[in-house]
Amino acid sequence: MSRSAFLFASATREPGPWKAALDAALPAYDVRVWPEVGAPDDVRYVLLWKPPAGLLGTLPNLEVAFSLGAGVDGLVDDPELPPGIPLVKMGEPGLVEGMWAYVLYHVLRYHRRMPEYEAQQARREWRELDQRPHRACRVGIMGLGRLGAATATRLAALDFDVAGWSRSPHRIEGVTCHHGDAGLDAFLRRTDILVCLLPLTEQTRGIIGARTIARLPRGAVVINAARGGHQVEDELVAALDSGHLSAATLDVFATEPLPAAHPLWAHPRVTITPHVASITDPVAAALEVAENVRRHEAGEPMAGVVDRSLGY
Amino acid sequence: MSRSAFLFASATREPGPWKAALDAALPAYDVRVWPEVGAPDDVRYVLLWKPPAGLLGTLPNLEVAFSLGAGVDGLVDDPELPPGIPLVKMGEPGLVEGMWAYVLYHVLRYHRRMPEYEAQQARREWRELDQRPHRACRVGIMGLGRLGAATATRLAALDFDVAGWSRSPHRIEGVTCHHGDAGLDAFLRRTDILVCLLPLTEQTRGIIGARTIARLPRGAVVINAARGGHQVEDELVAALDSGHLSAATLDVFATEPLPAAHPLWAHPRVTITPHVASITDPVAAALEVAENVRRHEAGEPMAGVVDRSLGY
Repeated sequence: MSRSAFLFASATREPGPWKAALDAALPAYDVRVWPEVGAPDDVRYVLLWKPPAGLLGTLPNLEVAFSLGAGVDGLVDDPELPPGIPLVKMGEPGLVEGMWAYVLYHVLRYHRRMPEYEAQQARREWRELDQRPHRACRVGIMGLGRLGAATATRLAALDFDVAGWSRSPHRIEGVTCHHGDAGLDAFLRRTDILVCLLPLTEQTRGIIGARTIARLPRGAVVINAARGGHQVEDELVAALDSGHLSAATLDVFATEPLPAAHPLWAHPRVTITPHVASITDPVAAALEVAENVRRHEAGEPMAGVVDRSLGY
Repeated sequence: MSRSAFLFASATREPGPWKAALDAALPAYDVRVWPEVGAPDDVRYVLLWKPPAGLLGTLPNLEVAFSLGAGVDGLVDDPELPPGIPLVKMGEPGLVEGMWAYVLYHVLRYHRRMPEYEAQQARREWRELDQRPHRACRVGIMGLGRLGAATATRLAALDFDVAGWSRSPHRIEGVTCHHGDAGLDAFLRRTDILVCLLPLTEQTRGIIGARTIARLPRGAVVINAARGGHQVEDELVAALDSGHLSAATLDVFATEPLPAAHPLWAHPRVTITPHVASITDPVAAALEVAENVRRHEAGEPMAGVVDRSLGY
């Protein structure tokens, strides 16, 4: 009789560290790595990141699908994932630290005018630029889930003037929270540095486009560390070229990897990182998954279960 | 009869914002701007930054000398400053925020491998680099005065592994504090990112030289936001060229402005900023100076009085 199996399935991630971490955290399970699925009937759990198409439909005894990332777009509407199977997003603490630190770094970079100082260094120019206090720098965080709320809280604790915007109302100490369509305009008009940490849903797709950008003050900056589907690339570039936006930091793109021929790579006011704002640590993630497996088998509620009707 | 005078004297700073801020904060005083000293007998207070040589010897009724910056090297041993005249260093809150934020930015920059990602962007290369948690990044702060202690505290609160080193013993929550010659070796051997925020004294001059650098782990980074006199430029460059140091961020130099012909400008692993890590805000500084003037005239102790025997 075979043991129950836990399947790691990603078409893009190197599986070695994941296999080792899952073996250590789930010793009672036969941890398998796609494409070596073995007998599909054994598989009770899967951990997914950009999974191969059609996989989920081949696992008749699946009980829970875990996402390797905090974003579950691409999984939540997978027709192969039966409606009754819980989908669980990742929340390991390193993922949270990675995100607030990424955003903090880029906020400090623009607030402290470091791109200008780098240009001065290249010209061998010694010139002091005006510097404003943190409280004069208005950061706006779109998306107040676990990552967005942690980022807003950290920036507010460092004395930045932070507001947040989300679909439903939130309360965060030290952060002015706006919500819904009715709250978006006031949020955007007071935001110098706009940070996108939204889930990707049909409501948020393309939100970083001409209409949103036009409501930001002239000279604003955009930081997108959520999903490429949030930005309308040509409208973003048009706003940079017109000077309405002074700069953008993009970690995510409609097509990833960003093709080498894509003009964004060479835009002088765009900073590009290769979807690394926040990287899930295999060891911490395996421990979190194992704890959720324990809860599931004990009949306790798991942490991070996605509301598939909302999409996050 | 003339009013008592307050003199602003700097050979390098644009005086306009200072005159306005001091007029507002000290309405009972005749605020003068060097070189328009007027009758020297009137001058009871001076606020100095790189003052013209010989000035202090011409003010017979001087009661207090204020420094525009937190560093008082160049003032503390000025033979024209009579021993009985208190010398007061700047501590306005913006100066403190500027410093911890500058250091935090550069620590995040190296920890998150942003110079490598920038090089990848220039090559249109999409590649994820290994990322370690903050607790695995060992930051060492040399100098635990007001600026150093605030920087250490902020970085520790963001989960970096922070140690400090200073002449005399300190206790800072969440920070392992070393002190004295006996404590330097252990401090350096555990430090991946070395931050200099020391006062410049005969004991600390040239401390960032070959002997100190050799005790850092291979691949360490140096951030100097204190004084150019702390670093031995040729030894620092040799350590960068040998690979023992992986990078340096320098805000201060032996000669400022750094001459356009200086080779440091073009070193591929040196980031240069023009002595802007922390800039004193005229309005906040004038309020702090006015409060100290009030205390002085009421016979109360002033904040920030320098121990001229220690040099800070």
